[in-house]
Amino acid sequence: MKISILTLFPEMFDVFQHSILGRAIKNNVITIDLYNIRDYSNNKHKKVDDYPYGGGAGMVLSPQPIVDCLKSVKENNKGKVVFLGPRGKTFNHEKAMDFSKEEELIFLCGHYEGLDERIYNYIDEEISLGDFVLTGGEMACIPIVDSICRLIPGVLSSNESFEEESFYNGLLEYPQYTRPEEYNGEKVPEILLSGHHDNIKKWRKAKSLIITKERRPDLYKKYKLTKEDIKILKNFGEN
Amino acid sequence: MKISILTLFPEMFDVFQHSILGRAIKNNVITIDLYNIRDYSNNKHKKVDDYPYGGGAGMVLSPQPIVDCLKSVKENNKGKVVFLGPRGKTFNHEKAMDFSKEEELIFLCGHYEGLDERIYNYIDEEISLGDFVLTGGEMACIPIVDSICRLIPGVLSSNESFEEESFYNGLLEYPQYTRPEEYNGEKVPEILLSGHHDNIKKWRKAKSLIITKERRPDLYKKYKLTKEDIKILKNFGEN
Repeated sequence: MKISILTLFPEMFDVFQHSILGRAIKNNVITIDLYNIRDYSNNKHKKVDDYPYGGGAGMVLSPQPIVDCLKSVKENNKGKVVFLGPRGKTFNHEKAMDFSKEEELIFLCGHYEGLDERIYNYIDEEISLGDFVLTGGEMACIPIVDSICRLIPGVLSSNESFEEESFYNGLLEYPQYTRPEEYNGEKVPEILLSGHHDNIKKWRKAKSLIITKERRPDLYKKYKLTKEDIKILKNFGEN
Repeated sequence: MKISILTLFPEMFDVFQHSILGRAIKNNVITIDLYNIRDYSNNKHKKVDDYPYGGGAGMVLSPQPIVDCLKSVKENNKGKVVFLGPRGKTFNHEKAMDFSKEEELIFLCGHYEGLDERIYNYIDEEISLGDFVLTGGEMACIPIVDSICRLIPGVLSSNESFEEESFYNGLLEYPQYTRPEEYNGEKVPEILLSGHHDNIKKWRKAKSLIITKERRPDLYKKYKLTKEDIKILKNFGEN
């Protein structure tokens, strides 16, 4: 997967070097190219923003540097142009799965008050990290690229990848325990020490269902209970 | 505001040095202390994780290093302990506002398959960035700390702070334009060049309402339309 990122702060993406993605970059499983939007400004002072028409606080990113930067990026990357902005669809696991199947992707990070509306003509999709405001699009781009890339085969080692994590099957994760058997007076549940794999599997599924129902009724409502699930819950005194 | 972060990858937080938060850190408006969980491991190889009881892929973070690290942090920080995890409430602007009023906060970043469940006894609140999976809690902690800190007075300059951004009033932002008046054949809407501030304000409010209704019907449903809003929409041919 080849990812090109357009940003005013390319040095912020050094964060990937310190993460699991850093290894995947070194191993050429993924490529992340950074483009500094400022380098494409025709202004002699390399200005990239200007005051908003109609007044108001904040600066607005001008069309010229971003559109020219995009043109240059598109010579080496045929992927869709994704803008990280608050008016987009909220990013989620499904979206991460879709993006992880692409061979090339271009991300545009905004800053200041926002983009000149005319830049949207050059954008294929807008994605929002969530219902909150950030100092810049980089802060959304970093976790979104992380979440997409970890799904690409070869990025995670077998020990890091697992299909029983939260959201994978639409449910939250079951509780996990490791050594010691007793910590500050609290013991690991007996069943996990029993060696009875089928019972452990059922206990985990029941816990996963119960925790999701309690904490995320919205996710639980969307989840389709199987006959097996209903049986498991009944055995755990739930219905 | 004093923020203490417990992590296995403290170098990832260098990202703040390159961001707007870096300036606030230099000016002592906020303090961010990093604690490496590994330094608190009693194991001679400084191990922090172990295999899960009951089997399964992935490693689980052990209670001892995290609980001992938390004890040490609490000597210098009386804030609540917030764990960045998928089973928590989804972070949003309201939550950012609440957190921004705290004087001290402690964030715990997880990794690998998850935390030993007994560690939750030492956690006050779990917060999720969204419905997707990350390589580590750092990837959630970075944008969440950014979103909280930008609300603290003195972090943003007057030019960066504005009360008309997305989510501030429960709506998405209206379109913005800057120079030139015409770019690649597309002109700035006449009204923004009119100098008629009251009309501009109404146009912006109408656009904000219409965009929110189209793209985020869930937000629009929660928003309480005022009599003024209804009048503005009527004038724009909407109802």
